Amino acid sequence: MQAKGKFITFEGGEGAGKTTMLQRLAGYFEDQHLPYILTREPGGIDISEQIRSIILNPAHTSMDGRTEALLYAAARRQHLVEKVEPALEEGSIVICDRFVDSSLVYQGFARGLGMEEVWSINQFAIDQRMPELTLYLDIEPEAGLARIAAHRGHEVDRLDMEGLDFHRKVREGYLLLASRYPERIKVVNADQSIEEVEADLIKQIEMWILEDFRREMSNH
Amino acid sequence: MQAKGKFITFEGGEGAGKTTMLQRLAGYFEDQHLPYILTREPGGIDISEQIRSIILNPAHTSMDGRTEALLYAAARRQHLVEKVEPALEEGSIVICDRFVDSSLVYQGFARGLGMEEVWSINQFAIDQRMPELTLYLDIEPEAGLARIAAHRGHEVDRLDMEGLDFHRKVREGYLLLASRYPERIKVVNADQSIEEVEADLIKQIEMWILEDFRREMSNH
Repeated sequence: MQAKGKFITFEGGEGAGKTTMLQRLAGYFEDQHLPYILTREPGGIDISEQIRSIILNPAHTSMDGRTEALLYAAARRQHLVEKVEPALEEGSIVICDRFVDSSLVYQGFARGLGMEEVWSINQFAIDQRMPELTLYLDIEPEAGLARIAAHRGHEVDRLDMEGLDFHRKVREGYLLLASRYPERIKVVNADQSIEEVEADLIKQIEMWILEDFRREMSNH
Repeated sequence: MQAKGKFITFEGGEGAGKTTMLQRLAGYFEDQHLPYILTREPGGIDISEQIRSIILNPAHTSMDGRTEALLYAAARRQHLVEKVEPALEEGSIVICDRFVDSSLVYQGFARGLGMEEVWSINQFAIDQRMPELTLYLDIEPEAGLARIAAHRGHEVDRLDMEGLDFHRKVREGYLLLASRYPERIKVVNADQSIEEVEADLIKQIEMWILEDFRREMSNH
């Protein structure tokens, strides 16, 4: 488990501006000449892509919530093994768009399977590989959904069919996790201008780098 | 969880004669005019079939053991929800060819992922639906594999590529489980003539029915 790289995950509800901020964070590492990769499950990994297409097939209306959670965990595992671990091994910063927290929040909390139970299968999937840092872009569901309607012509999949109440539970779940793991999960207020969100994000990253430096000093 | 039916699972290594004995057991219930169904994962359940074809695709040589275990658990869940539970609900005896014990033994024990860990994801998958009775057809791997070679022109999949040592571990795993759960798992000596194995099998079933009758009496 002693990888040389660093593992950062990004989380957020609909319309929080995750895609834009991922690009900005990548730009920051670019500017600092730090090696990084940007990925998200299934991330072009063949087995994970095939699993994901079973999940997203709109014909699969009979899919049980537990089946879905197990499939997400399986796709996660394979993406981790084939893409994340090798990059960490090479000393890269791996920025992953969504990871275990998404499952805990969406399946465990918002869909009601139970965070503990969804954690148990994810624990199996990740085999102790937790992110060192998780950035959660926080926005009220109303504001997030309004942004989506304004900016995108979005494809309809099963997730989009859920209503506002669902997105409120999602936010509640993320804030609950952030309160439980304040060391790992940093909340960024996403209901600001792009520049302001970016500034807050970079501030979090710089604080985290400093903290990492401090830890390393005390280990010697 | 108060289903009216009964859930029986069948387990055994290669060449134990599982298929033949499943037919004989079905014949017994037929003779007794007891409602039953015979199934095995993925069992014609569309989602489970698609998951299974990802597992068995010979091109997927990079598949991680944990990914595979999660996929088996996902296929299991969907088959349980769409086929086993409805049949139990209707009051049938459901005879299932392989179930959780196969995962514990093959992935957990023989492949070395750990029985406890594989149990954790299966516990999530079955959500407390354990078989009331598990019949394990026990045979030495050498004898079992010799039977296969004599009787079948068998298709080559990834499982068949494993060697004799693997099948020895499989047997060891089953015997370990049987020793831990003697109430649920009954060991039938499969290294006998078909008629002898069948006689032992029916004896186990009749003892189990009597035991069930006794339990029911004491509940009133």
